[in-house]
Amino acid sequence: MAELLPDERLDYLVDEQLKIIQSNSVFSFSLDAVLLSRFAWVPIQKGRIIDLCTGNGAIPLLLSTRSKAAITGVEIQERLSSMAKRSTAINSLEEQISIHTLDIKEAAAEFGHGTFDALTCNPPYFPSVNEKDYNENPHLAIARHEIHCTLEDVIRVSSQLVKQGGKAAFVHRPNRLMEILAYMRQYELEPKRLQLIYPREGSEANMLLIEGMKKGKPDLHILPPLTVYGSDGQYTEQLKKVFYGR
Amino acid sequence: MAELLPDERLDYLVDEQLKIIQSNSVFSFSLDAVLLSRFAWVPIQKGRIIDLCTGNGAIPLLLSTRSKAAITGVEIQERLSSMAKRSTAINSLEEQISIHTLDIKEAAAEFGHGTFDALTCNPPYFPSVNEKDYNENPHLAIARHEIHCTLEDVIRVSSQLVKQGGKAAFVHRPNRLMEILAYMRQYELEPKRLQLIYPREGSEANMLLIEGMKKGKPDLHILPPLTVYGSDGQYTEQLKKVFYGR
Repeated sequence: MAELLPDERLDYLVDEQLKIIQSNSVFSFSLDAVLLSRFAWVPIQKGRIIDLCTGNGAIPLLLSTRSKAAITGVEIQERLSSMAKRSTAINSLEEQISIHTLDIKEAAAEFGHGTFDALTCNPPYFPSVNEKDYNENPHLAIARHEIHCTLEDVIRVSSQLVKQGGKAAFVHRPNRLMEILAYMRQYELEPKRLQLIYPREGSEANMLLIEGMKKGKPDLHILPPLTVYGSDGQYTEQLKKVFYGR
Repeated sequence: MAELLPDERLDYLVDEQLKIIQSNSVFSFSLDAVLLSRFAWVPIQKGRIIDLCTGNGAIPLLLSTRSKAAITGVEIQERLSSMAKRSTAINSLEEQISIHTLDIKEAAAEFGHGTFDALTCNPPYFPSVNEKDYNENPHLAIARHEIHCTLEDVIRVSSQLVKQGGKAAFVHRPNRLMEILAYMRQYELEPKRLQLIYPREGSEANMLLIEGMKKGKPDLHILPPLTVYGSDGQYTEQLKKVFYGR
């Protein structure tokens, strides 16, 4: 059994089949990661999947319930990749999941161009960070802000890593949609599926899921909207189905 | 009272306050035009609004219930602009609405650059047309297909016509979203509001409403989704509110 550091705890990851090491002071997975892991296309029986900016490894763990393919997780922060590695061990998934402590900008050199059938990434959402926030919690600041990789880095590197016809799926904020689409087209990840997530009925979207195909032909589908919370403040039935459903 | 041609009829336009001349064999307004006329920003008390590809004038007529501004409608097909002109007369709106039979590509030369506070356009949705469909009904073919104006023409001309800070709103199909956003950015109509329309719950979006601001700064909001039909096959309450609401 992998050891927990003092500020860490062992949580269930969505359901009781998976456990994950978390830490309020360093990193915890979010709904965003769960929704991306449900949304992304994955090869079922074989192939290779990569998850960039993997944090504590929530997405590789969740994808392992949908695919038998080899899953690579890449995380620049040693502290977080250590959590991901230990969570992989706790779930006895070392045969399927390998976690690498690596800057994503080095990933194509490390794994080769056009290596992966599918890619996922829940990148930092916010462009800049002020010094005070960074100094207070550099781990969270690096995970949330474009300190070590920009949105353009994420999309450029994703395009390098997937093979022709391969898929790359991202979760991000709607106010970055214009940039995301522009970079996806620039780096030949043609957007194929877009889903908007709304916190509650009547609200503006606060999250988007998007998947592109490397050198695919233009044909964008906008999937049914997903609303997270009902008027009772609880998860909607629709969200529960995506969240817990297989 | 304006005369009706043999294949024409006089319909109510949404409610009993407005009437519109329609013709099944030439042109009838659609839900798309109604939703665009509800979605678009308009100046309330004064200013100038233009509607491109106005068809039988449904959008200028509907906008007249929301604004006191002068409204210009532009339609290339004489047969359709004639319907729009006569509908304007039937509703006694000649003081507010003027209809011009004109190729939109001539509109900036005719009305001047940077003339309008707001612009709407429900353009042809489909790139090409086969000869058979064209010969069977050239009026409908021209309204639906990019025969006399392409999507790029629509967005380039729209950008010419609105003033700095002015708004241009379009209705189109989701599979053209990538092109729309690329042209809007290219021609400096920064996308500000996007709304997806879904035919029914659980279906992919089949319509989009988008509004840009001339030389606006990037800040895209994705409005709550709108679902047209309920499981009973009738308009949803949400749709009725948009459709009939003021």
